[in-house]
Parts: sequence; structure tokens; C-alpha cells
Amino acid sequence: MADKTRIAILGASGYTGAELVRLLARHPHVEIVALTADRKAGEQMSDVFPHLVMLDLPTLTSIDQVDWSGVDVVFCALPHATTQVVLAGLPAHIKIVDLSADFRLRDPSAYEKWYGHPHQAIELQKEAVYGLPEFYRADIAKARLVANTGCYVAASIIPLVPLLKAGVVEPDPIVIDAASGVTGAGRGAKEANLFAEVSEGFHAYGVGGHRHSAEIDQELTVAAGREVMPSFTPHLLPQNRGILATCYVRGDAEAVHRALKEAYAGEAFVHVLPFGRTPATRHVRGSNHCLIGVVADRQPGRAIVISAIDNLVRGASGQAVQNMNIMMGWPETTGLEQLPLFP
Amino acid sequence: MADKTRIAILGASGYTGAELVRLLARHPHVEIVALTADRKAGEQMSDVFPHLVMLDLPTLTSIDQVDWSGVDVVFCALPHATTQVVLAGLPAHIKIVDLSADFRLRDPSAYEKWYGHPHQAIELQKEAVYGLPEFYRADIAKARLVANTGCYVAASIIPLVPLLKAGVVEPDPIVIDAASGVTGAGRGAKEANLFAEVSEGFHAYGVGGHRHSAEIDQELTVAAGREVMPSFTPHLLPQNRGILATCYVRGDAEAVHRALKEAYAGEAFVHVLPFGRTPATRHVRGSNHCLIGVVADRQPGRAIVISAIDNLVRGASGQAVQNMNIMMGWPETTGLEQLPLFP
Amino acid sequence: MADKTRIAILGASGYTGAELVRLLARHPHVEIVALTADRKAGEQMSDVFPHLVMLDLPTLTSIDQVDWSGVDVVFCALPHATTQVVLAGLPAHIKIVDLSADFRLRDPSAYEKWYGHPHQAIELQKEAVYGLPEFYRADIAKARLVANTGCYVAASIIPLVPLLKAGVVEPDPIVIDAASGVTGAGRGAKEANLFAEVSEGFHAYGVGGHRHSAEIDQELTVAAGREVMPSFTPHLLPQNRGILATCYVRGDAEAVHRALKEAYAGEAFVHVLPFGRTPATRHVRGSNHCLIGVVADRQPGRAIVISAIDNLVRGASGQAVQNMNIMMGWPETTGLEQLPLFP
Amino acid sequence: MADKTRIAILGASGYTGAELVRLLARHPHVEIVALTADRKAGEQMSDVFPHLVMLDLPTLTSIDQVDWSGVDVVFCALPHATTQVVLAGLPAHIKIVDLSADFRLRDPSAYEKWYGHPHQAIELQKEAVYGLPEFYRADIAKARLVANTGCYVAASIIPLVPLLKAGVVEPDPIVIDAASGVTGAGRGAKEANLFAEVSEGFHAYGVGGHRHSAEIDQELTVAAGREVMPSFTPHLLPQNRGILATCYVRGDAEAVHRALKEAYAGEAFVHVLPFGRTPATRHVRGSNHCLIGVVADRQPGRAIVISAIDNLVRGASGQAVQNMNIMMGWPETTGLEQLPLFP
Repeated sequence: MADKTRIAILGASGYTGAELVRLLARHPHVEIVALTADRKAGEQMSDVFPHLVMLDLPTLTSIDQVDWSGVDVVFCALPHATTQVVLAGLPAHIKIVDLSADFRLRDPSAYEKWYGHPHQAIELQKEAVYGLPEFYRADIAKARLVANTGCYVAASIIPLVPLLKAGVVEPDPIVIDAASGVTGAGRGAKEANLFAEVSEGFHAYGVGGHRHSAEIDQELTVAAGREVMPSFTPHLLPQNRGILATCYVRGDAEAVHRALKEAYAGEAFVHVLPFGRTPATRHVRGSNHCLIGVVADRQPGRAIVISAIDNLVRGASGQAVQNMNIMMGWPETTGLEQLPLFP
Repeated sequence: MADKTRIAILGASGYTGAELVRLLARHPHVEIVALTADRKAGEQMSDVFPHLVMLDLPTLTSIDQVDWSGVDVVFCALPHATTQVVLAGLPAHIKIVDLSADFRLRDPSAYEKWYGHPHQAIELQKEAVYGLPEFYRADIAKARLVANTGCYVAASIIPLVPLLKAGVVEPDPIVIDAASGVTGAGRGAKEANLFAEVSEGFHAYGVGGHRHSAEIDQELTVAAGREVMPSFTPHLLPQNRGILATCYVRGDAEAVHRALKEAYAGEAFVHVLPFGRTPATRHVRGSNHCLIGVVADRQPGRAIVISAIDNLVRGASGQAVQNMNIMMGWPETTGLEQLPLFP
Repeated sequence: MADKTRIAILGASGYTGAELVRLLARHPHVEIVALTADRKAGEQMSDVFPHLVMLDLPTLTSIDQVDWSGVDVVFCALPHATTQVVLAGLPAHIKIVDLSADFRLRDPSAYEKWYGHPHQAIELQKEAVYGLPEFYRADIAKARLVANTGCYVAASIIPLVPLLKAGVVEPDPIVIDAASGVTGAGRGAKEANLFAEVSEGFHAYGVGGHRHSAEIDQELTVAAGREVMPSFTPHLLPQNRGILATCYVRGDAEAVHRALKEAYAGEAFVHVLPFGRTPATRHVRGSNHCLIGVVADRQPGRAIVISAIDNLVRGASGQAVQNMNIMMGWPETTGLEQLPLFP
Repeated sequence: MADKTRIAILGASGYTGAELVRLLARHPHVEIVALTADRKAGEQMSDVFPHLVMLDLPTLTSIDQVDWSGVDVVFCALPHATTQVVLAGLPAHIKIVDLSADFRLRDPSAYEKWYGHPHQAIELQKEAVYGLPEFYRADIAKARLVANTGCYVAASIIPLVPLLKAGVVEPDPIVIDAASGVTGAGRGAKEANLFAEVSEGFHAYGVGGHRHSAEIDQELTVAAGREVMPSFTPHLLPQNRGILATCYVRGDAEAVHRALKEAYAGEAFVHVLPFGRTPATRHVRGSNHCLIGVVADRQPGRAIVISAIDNLVRGASGQAVQNMNIMMGWPETTGLEQLPLFP
């Protein structure tokens, strides 16, 4: 094991933490050497996540018990704000993939606006690379800190960025109507996420101004070369995993389809379906794949572009492993070959 | 029982048929005298729907076995096309609430375009009244044949028609992003509606040109006094009941809210939530209520209007009973007082 | 309204509280005059339960704000232990239906054994009547305090008590394998009841010695006239409502069926299916009905008896209303005519 | 690829077929060379199962189009009866793992009793080896035809066989109360398996005499050395995957736990939880693992033993791959290292 890359997962008791363990435990080049969960320090991972009972894993510890000299790569799945403070204190030899929102907004004033307090690690923010692998591969390869793209944002910008770059859709109006499985809300014990409050029902939330909007705007604006501010409405689905983003754009649907086919030709994890077919979240469950479909609206000059990802994999832990693979110079699909689990 | 209105339900073996029985069996002014289901003729309703085992109901028959002289009101829940032929043959003394799509499009050429064959009962179409109670109450009161509004259409036009009438939103662009529980697809044994194909997943269907678009266009065009053709995308939810329609419009959100409050003041079944709150389908489950919420988009000049109904009640059988109540001159809420079942 | 019976619901912010409101708001002889929820005092019921937005209800208060002089009947849906203290302090003119476990065990030492502390209201315990309507109707009619039967217990003893009374099954061994929807666990924000922890999975809990065992033993022992101690295992279902109890007994299956048919002939809420048919929880959803099926095991001399109820209705709030109806001398089905909601 | 073992999957359009593809497409020693589905011949696997769109797979063919000379191993996921005829016609060089029930009952008269017609391939039946890997490993290694254990049966006999062999439980009475996700019923378009008929509900089926009983009896009888005929009741869960078997036995619970720990020490796929803990189906989802828990009943001398598997993996396709690994002399876990997918 001596030559394996040594991994610490901070915040291992949440769903993205467990998903990192699922993926990394079978990754051929790494070894998990530390798992932290401050409130569950001393417990076994199999007490917290019985589905991992068949693994031999380190005991959960608090963050300050980690011996950083034995760690090569940190995956950080801590809450926002806490993340800034913890990551700013890590030794310089450690590479970091951060799954929080803390380092995704390049403009610190945008962070302050949406999160209500000044950014605590502005220097670190300056060196952070935005972690959408297909868009920033070269920068990620050289980065020490990668800010993993958020789940709704990944589902939205993977289909839209190439269209704005290619100029085949108008930057305004764009409507992104998206829906997510409930694991996107984490494992916190909140009434709103109880089975009886989520099952057999559907509703929108954060309507009009969800935090993730800022991250979407940032990347669409870069792609378009002018300010873009789509309407974006997230909804909560009565299911565990999956995000579907239904995007309404102005542009020729066939040109839209062509632009996406070209942009993602050769990509291992992004698949553009034949024109007129559309994806379902259940067909990417448990995998790092993103499926995209394009349909012409009955209104001439309008197209509907739909993407599907698993929010815990492509929208979080799988994409984080993909980013690590790039940072380490390994083939991008290493440890991510799992096929979707259906049904 | 002699003075009760005598009801026949045609197509009683589907979900809307069973829902009609649930509501009408407890309606104080009616008596169910005939239930038809051609392929299940001779069976008991409790064989087909065990949840009705506690009722004493007529045996299922084929349509041609019904003694029409003993029937005052027909609820028709037959497939489209069949419906036209059956209803055209009914005696003139019978009032009809039709739950199919056959008589909803006033323009026979629109029917032919979307359904692929000429309308078989054009004379009957001429006398049919469109069955959205809050909009056409006076006409419904005088009608012999009411064409019950479709489920997606009800969820879409209840919030949008008053806005177009009041002129507080632009007729174009409008995006209606809607999602329905699977009972909207009926009880037919199709692979696509199996539990394993529907649960734990979400997808769009009929993208770009769903049949229900024509009905939405018709009513929005009447309301706006000019042609309106919104983008409309239905999605399938992993749940039994409920439609949520998330509508993106251009207009001042507060004016939108005011217009809806005014339009539905005094309505028993339509409730406009306080500004900024949005509804969930689970909060109308099993009831005839429609909840509407209005939020200002972060883009100035845009509003998001969201409605929630139970597709089998307000989108089908409950609305049908409401229409019958109007046709018969009874209080509109008779037999529809059930509160939502949550959780 | 002056002649309506005035109702207070204590603990109105839980699922059984909301279900009491759903049923009592449409009950012709009562008026809800007080709703308590200590931690939500000052809020509207529609803030806590948006599905009740169409009702005009009293504001939530703390218990000590209730004017007991204006209350005729109390429904108590408080946690156990608290219940004892609160109910012991109520004025003598108030009739009480208690939905907690506090007054169900006639033997105070059994209470102390299972709940870990001495009973705080032993005098009140002495006058409490056990609230399974079909078994204790005469006593309930005269009672001031009725201890509503627990949900698992109702599902278990409704099929088994008549069999033991009739002597058609052996008292030992009896296995009760039961499963409940998650609303049985209440609305508390616990990780174990999150959607992601409950959906797409099934497990047993409280195996070997669930608290409800004592209540089951008590009633089966009374019925058999000797000590009965079945094996009882509860399981958690990925659904909101419903309990299914699959009971394995020794006895002749046809005699078992006959005994149940006789015991429940004429009962409005208990239905024994034809021999060989078995019930499903979805077919009683939202209703006060109990369905029972009997099948012969392939092992001669053994029978399988299966019952289905809605845990929130027949297992809690509906049964509580049924008990009130008996206490008040009203027809037992008053306000409980709702048919099951399927699907 | 020349040295890879060449695989044909017969009946690839069902759920177990798709699951075989999911597992075998990532198995390092095999190559899928033929996929049959008579009614879908000519279609692509990705048309039938869009979650496999990222794979390059053979086009679906009918069985008679397969070139058997290029096939080394057949996985047969055809319906029973058909299976016998097809497998009897295969060339002798082909090894077979059969997932149907056709070759599981060693006694042809037992087959005839439960399936209603004489067995069509009695010679083949004689050489078939029963495919529960942990029990028949040595025989499987030498077999040409392995009859993969059924899903309910695997969940039942994995915990019970070692107990009967060790003599720590009495052979009678044993109650096996089991519940399965709906994928166990296959992908056929049946009303009973529609989402709306399965979700939010729970029921037993095949009560008193399910076909799988014969297979359970066969293996328990071998283990006990005398006839064993447990009560066995299957139930349908509102979830896709997973079987939980709750088994009620007479015996000392701690001795039961010890016997299971000993029997499965060193097994890769069977895990006996610490005494008093019990498993959940969600914690084995998508994996080949079986979890077992043991609890003492409150009745002295009785124990409750609970097992959990994924019916499509350990109960079908994963076990089939495990059997192939044994037949081919490969490490038993090859291609089966996937961890459970939770949530």
C-alpha cells in the first residue's frame, strides 16, 4: 500500500462523505487513511453507514486528530463557512477537492452577498480552480485546490455553457426548471426532509433567488461573454438521487443539438442523446454520467434542452474523484467505471 | 332514494372512474345506478377496486346493457374517440359530464390535427360547454354536455387565465413547466408505468408538443384576446397523485398576485397563498382544491406562478362533480368537502 | 354553533393531531375550539400543516392557555408521561380520548416495567376504559377517559381476539409479523425517519421486545383466559400510512374464517374478506376500516390471518373519533364515512 | 479480447438480464458476445434499457440467431418451461448458469406438482447442480449446468441452513415472513405491478403455498436430515430492490448467533451482524452481499433471525456471476466488488 495516494475525507458522516468512501474504497490508486466527523468521533463508519459494513475503514475522528503529514489529498465535505477556516489551515503539500460552496464564486463580494458574511480565506479563493472537469481540465491539472461544481449547477451548465460559447442560443431569456432528489439536502434531521414530508408530493423551493443562481450566472456569463441571468427554480422530488434540468432557450434546436454533440464528442461522462430523445434521472443513478437531450419546441425558434445527473455522483462525489484523477495525472475515469443502477 | 338523481359512470374500471365512485357514493343528492366497464362486465366493483369493498354498488356491465331511461346524469370516463360515438348515441334527457378530451377543443380542425382523425360528433361538439367551473359557470349551468377540463390544463389555466384577462402579464413568452403523478396515465398495463420504471426517477415526456397544448392555447388565447402559445413541458413524477405547474411569466409579481387574489376571492376551491409562498401537491391530495403561489423572480419584471392540484380530483373526477353540481343547481361544494389527506 | 360539542385537541402539531382536525372539521356535531402545541404556540395551524389552509381554525396555543370551561371533549395526542400529568389536571366535566400509551395498560407495574418510571396518575388509570370500540363498546359509552388502542395493537388484536375467545386457535405459538408506514413514528425530526433513510428499503425494529407487546399480551390474555405472549416483530415500510399484520396461528383455517365472520357481522368498520383473499394497506388508506383475510397454510392445522388498517385513522385518530361517538351516544360512524383514497 | 470468456445472455430484456449486463460489462475476464430477446430482436440494448447507453453491446437477437460455437458460457434468464427446451438444445461445450426455476428441484415429481406439467429435460436435471455458492461450492466448480437459487429462497436458506445443520434450532415450527421489492416480479406489463398499484401500500401474496416453498423445503430438509416444511409468506414492498426474510425459530438465540458466525467466517458475501443488530435491505442495494442479524425473542427459547439481500444481485444476477466465477476457477468475488448504493 506504500505507494498509494493517501486520502482524508473531512465530513465523512454525510451522504457525500459516504459516497466518496463508496467510490474511493474501490479506486485502484488510493487508500483512505482518515475519516472525520466531529460529532461522531470515535464511532465506526459502519455504525453511521451500515451499508459500508464490509469495508475495513479508519475510525471516525475529529478534524484536529488528523495527522496531516500522512495525507496527500483531502476531500472536504464540510458545511460552508467552516470549510474556509479548515482548509486555510491545511499544510501546503496537501491537494484539496472541496465539495462545499465556499470557493466556487470567484468574486468574494458575490460570496458575501449570498452567504451573508465576508469570505474568511480570500487568498485561498484566489488560487482555487472551478471544478467542472470538462470545462477547466487544464487548470485543474495544475491546481492545489479545486472547488467542485455544485449539483444543480453541474446539471445546468453542462448543457448550457457550450451553447452560449457557440452562440447558438440567446443569452436571454433562459429558463432553467430543475428538480432534485432529497439527498441534495443532506443528512441533517430536519422536519422538511422526513419521509412523510417528501414522499407522494412535489414542490418548488428557493423560488426567485436560490443561492446556486450566483454560481450558474458566473459560468454562463463567462461562456457568453456578457451578463447572463436565467430564471432558475429548484424543486424537491420524492426520490433519493437525481437532478433533471429542463432548460428553455431561444435558438434553432438542431443547431443546439449539433453544438452539444461537438462539444462532448470524446467525453467519457457526457452523452448527448439522438435528437428528440430526452433523459431520465433513473438512468444515471449511482454513476458519474450526464445525459443530455434536445427537442424542438412547437414554437419555432425555441428549443428545450434537458440534462440528467446523479446529484451525489456527478453532482458531488464522483465529480470530485474525477477532479482528483485530473489533479493526479490519472486517467479521468479511474474508479468511476460503475454503470448506472437501474431499477 | 326515489328522489335522488340517478348516475351512470361509463368506464368505471379506470382511476377516474373509481374516484367518481368515491365521491359520488357520499354525495347526498345522487345514487349510482350503473357502472360500465366493457372488458370487466359481470365483475363486482370490489373485485376491480378492493378499496371500495365496503360499498353496495351495481355490478359492472357493458355500455349496451345500461337502461338509459333510469339514468339522469352520465359521467363518461371512456377513452377518446370511443367517447364521441357513445355520447352521440345517448337519449336527449341525459345530462353528461365528459372527462375525455373529445369535446374540449371548440375547433374541430384542431381536434383532427392533434388526434389524427376527423371528429365523429361535430353537432354534439357545438353544444358542448368547456368545463372549467370558475370560468364558465353560467354556461355550465345551462349545458347538457360539459367537457371537463384536462388535468394539466386545469393546473395551467387556473393561474394564467386571470393574469391574461387582467393584462398583468405579457402573452409571450410564457413557459409552463409541469409535472404529474402517474395516475394521470391511467390504469393500463404499460411497461412505462410499472413501479420499477417510475419510482426513484424523473423525466419529461411529450416534450415540444404535447396534445394538451392545444387545449391550453385555446383557453389562454380566449383570455388574452390574441394568440398565445406557451412552451409547455410535462414531466412524470414518482408519486400517485398531484400536478404542479411552475409558470414563468413577464409582469410585475405583486400585480400578478393582486390579480389572482381578486379573481379568486370567494371561490371555494381556489386559494391564492400569501405573496412569496408556494404550494406543494401533497397539500391538496385527495381534495378538489387548487393552491396558487406567486414569487418575484430575481430578474426584475419576471414572476413565477405555481399551482398545485390533485390530478384525479380537481383535474378530473372532483371537477366533474363540481360541474354536475352547477348543472343541477346544487351548491358547488356538495359532496366535495373532503379535506386533503396528508401525509 | 351553540349546541355543538366543543373540542380541544392537545398536541395538534403532530400527524395524529392533524388527522383529528381533518376528521373533526367535517364532523357534524362538533366544533374545534382549542388546538395546543406548546412549541408552536401563536402559529396558525395552516403554517404547521399547509394542507389545512382552507379551514378557519383556532390559533395554536400552549396547554395552559386553554379555557377548560369552554371545552366538552379533549383529544390528547401528547407524548407519553406528559400525558399523565396533563390529563390528571383536567376538570371533571371534560370527557377525554387519550391517544397516548399512558392509560392502556391496566396493571401499573406493567407500565412501570416498559416505560421505566412509576405511573403518575394511578387513580385516573383505574377509571380509564380500554378503547377498542368493537370489544368494549358498553364500557366506552359510560367512560370519562378512554385509552385509545395503539396502532400495531389494533391491527393485531382485531383479528386475534375473536379467535382466542372462540377457542378456534391455540394461544401458543402465535407469531405476529407486522409492518407500518412511517407516520407511525410521528413528525419528530429524526435522522432515522428522513426520506433517504426510509425510502427504497425495509427493516425490522424493536425486535424481540417492542413496547407494544405488553398491550397485545394484555388483550390476548383477556381473550384467551390464560397468559398469551406471541412473538411480535414490527417493521418499517417505505410508505406513509398503513399497517399490515400477518399472523401465524394453529387452528383450522375455515373455522378461523367462520369465527371472524361471526364476530364482525354487522360491524361498520371491520370487514372479513372471502376465504382465501387477503388485504392490502393501500385499500384502507385514509379510512377507519379494517380488512381481514384468512388463508389455510400448506401445513395442515395452521392458518394465516392478515389484517390491514390505516395507522393514523383506525390506528389513532379515526378510532378516537369512533370512541367519542360512542361516549356521546352518536351513531358510531358519524364523521367517519370517508372512503379509502386509492391510489 | 481473444482470451476472454465469451458470454451469451438469453432473455436480456428483463431486469435480471440488464443486471447481468451491468455486472458482466465490468468483469475483467469476460466479453458479452450475444444478447437475446425474441420479441425485441433487432433493437439495441440501449433502446430497451437507456441506462446502458454508454456501453458498446451486441444488438439483441432471437435465440436461434446465436452462433453457439462462439459462446463459452450462457446465462439463461428465460421464463420457466421455455428454459428447459432451450437449454436441452445447447452444445455440450457450453457452461450454463440458469436463473429460472426449471432445474432447482431435484425431484422431477416436485417440479410437476408445482408447475403443472412434466419436466421436459429430465436428463439435464440430473446433472444440474443447485447454485447456492456457499453450500455447494465444490459441486459447482465441476458443474456444466448450475441452477441459480431463487431470490426468496436465497434470503431464507442462507440464514436457516447452517442452523439446521448445526442442530441449534428445531425443524418445526419455523415461520419465514418475507418481503420483496417489485423487481422480483419482472418487467412484464401487468396491472398489479403498476406504480399506482404498488406504491404507498403493502400486502401478502401467494399466501399458504407459494411455489418457492418447494425449493425452501428441499434445502432445509437436506440440512436437517428430516422433512422440514416452514410457514412461508411473501409480501410485496413499495420499493424496487431488496428482500428481507424475518425467520422465527425455536432455539437459543446466542447459540444461533454463534452457529451463523462460524458458518460464514471467511465468506466474502455473507456478514453476520453483532448479536442484537438487524439488517435493512437498503444497506445491500446493488451489491452481492447478504446481511444477517440475530435477536432473542422475549419468549425464552425463541430467536428471530433476519436476513437482507438485493433480489436482483444476490438473489439473481450477482449470484449467477459468483457461480460462473466458481465454475471457471476465478476468485469468487471477481466482478462483484461493487459496494451497496445508499441512499
